[in-house]
Amino acid sequence: MKHPLHESRQVSRPYRITNGTKFRLRDYDPGDTGKLTAGDKPRAIEALRTGIELLAEMQDRLYAQDRYAVLVVIQAMDAAGKDSAIKHVMSGVNPQSVEVSSFKQPNSEELDHDFLWRCAKRLPERGHIGIFNRSYYEEVLVVRVHPEILASQKLPDEPSGQKLWEQRYKDIRGFERHLANNGTMVRKIFLNVSRDEQKKRFLERLNDPQKNWKFSAADVAERGCWKDYMQAYEDAIRETATPDAPWYVVPADNKWYTRIVVASAIIDTLASLDLEYPKVTGQKLKDFAAAKKALLAEGKPARKR
Amino acid sequence: MKHPLHESRQVSRPYRITNGTKFRLRDYDPGDTGKLTAGDKPRAIEALRTGIELLAEMQDRLYAQDRYAVLVVIQAMDAAGKDSAIKHVMSGVNPQSVEVSSFKQPNSEELDHDFLWRCAKRLPERGHIGIFNRSYYEEVLVVRVHPEILASQKLPDEPSGQKLWEQRYKDIRGFERHLANNGTMVRKIFLNVSRDEQKKRFLERLNDPQKNWKFSAADVAERGCWKDYMQAYEDAIRETATPDAPWYVVPADNKWYTRIVVASAIIDTLASLDLEYPKVTGQKLKDFAAAKKALLAEGKPARKR
Repeated sequence: MKHPLHESRQVSRPYRITNGTKFRLRDYDPGDTGKLTAGDKPRAIEALRTGIELLAEMQDRLYAQDRYAVLVVIQAMDAAGKDSAIKHVMSGVNPQSVEVSSFKQPNSEELDHDFLWRCAKRLPERGHIGIFNRSYYEEVLVVRVHPEILASQKLPDEPSGQKLWEQRYKDIRGFERHLANNGTMVRKIFLNVSRDEQKKRFLERLNDPQKNWKFSAADVAERGCWKDYMQAYEDAIRETATPDAPWYVVPADNKWYTRIVVASAIIDTLASLDLEYPKVTGQKLKDFAAAKKALLAEGKPARKR
Repeated sequence: MKHPLHESRQVSRPYRITNGTKFRLRDYDPGDTGKLTAGDKPRAIEALRTGIELLAEMQDRLYAQDRYAVLVVIQAMDAAGKDSAIKHVMSGVNPQSVEVSSFKQPNSEELDHDFLWRCAKRLPERGHIGIFNRSYYEEVLVVRVHPEILASQKLPDEPSGQKLWEQRYKDIRGFERHLANNGTMVRKIFLNVSRDEQKKRFLERLNDPQKNWKFSAADVAERGCWKDYMQAYEDAIRETATPDAPWYVVPADNKWYTRIVVASAIIDTLASLDLEYPKVTGQKLKDFAAAKKALLAEGKPARKR
């Protein structure tokens, strides 16, 4: 048996896109479960547990080293499992160095700034993992499918049409390159759910009183634009998948598989870094020796409280 | 056997102070393990697991209801186990609605504001749990033990001395009352470690290469002010323990016990709220019926992507 870290890292590799040029969404099957079948579900749950332990260990070193940050952007259609992937992959990880930010419709203060601004404010600091539940990618997804939204964005008149999207892709590439240059590992995850599976989940949600409060009738209307959304996702991935900031197109029709692929993507990212506990050397070692001596010389404290 | 929720809630009750008037720190034993002994450790670990599951369930409803927030302030001497309590109690809880904020020495922007400002910025939103790893209480703890820090705080000249601390306690009470009035449940936890146990942990930390990077020789120096710190904690708790914003003085010499008491305090807080999934009624129910009908009428989608 191979080392569990090696195995965990491999799971997400087939779904990673580091060069978008030839990307076609139709090459990626939402129902894919890799080498596993539905019968392997218990094994997958066990693999997720192992993966989360690995992740927690590496996160501890990431935090101690305080040099790199990891930003995981999660994008998807409704009911693809964003919330559930975050819950199941990131629960079990020390919340002290994880921040999840959810981006809904921008408010008026946010609209008075450029479209990266509100996300930049929520970037993870060194040593932390930041999860974006939706992100600045909405600006080339929902806004592209519904360009009438642009009217509220107070943009300068030029450019418009295709040029505007090209400008936004370029801005995003520049932003992500800047982050990579400065120690933030950017990884983008598209939870690739099928239209049929979304329908099934909507119907389940409508029937479950613990979940139906999440449901909005508008979500069903958005299904009418499915094809446009898929085109927008394909273009966004083509234009912004780079070695520095790869996309993962994660099969999302089977939640048990989705979770291990998402965990694997984060594990692979952390494992690619040279994470080490800071080494104590020089003057600090001398200070430590002095501190130790002082502590040992104390004996039983005379002053009891 | 009693219901696990009832049991979980009870564990923290002996350590809860809702009226500080008669509080004396010496009445609280850092080595206390309640009804448990060291032999019960496996049982305590199991109880923690059950507790975290309860907590995660209640948090899901807190989030769905989106009415209340919970703020848990954790204060303690070095090596009392703040980080480890956060890690072990809050791992397993959905990080999407938990934020941990660590407050170190204030930076220059923070010093240009009142002492509550930087903490107010990090308050949890409705539906979320916020954990403060240190907080505005440092202003009546470390600053009181080392009043020379005040010189950097650019304060108006008056008041000073005892009056200043009284003013700060009053400001804190006012701030916490305001939060309670507006739906944020404030709970304050003092991890009550003994001076002997701190020494033991410092020595362990110095010897462990995975932990010694955390160590600062200044921490040992602070032990010299132990008595002053205990006085400052006692006074702070006397002055700010209220029914709306109680303190918990949690025994911290045994980490396995500390964790179940901290979990219990949060569980007790959540259980005191009337947490319910939002009920879908009226027009929304009609919208849901229409959405369901539309979904079922779709049949197999003609447009495949």
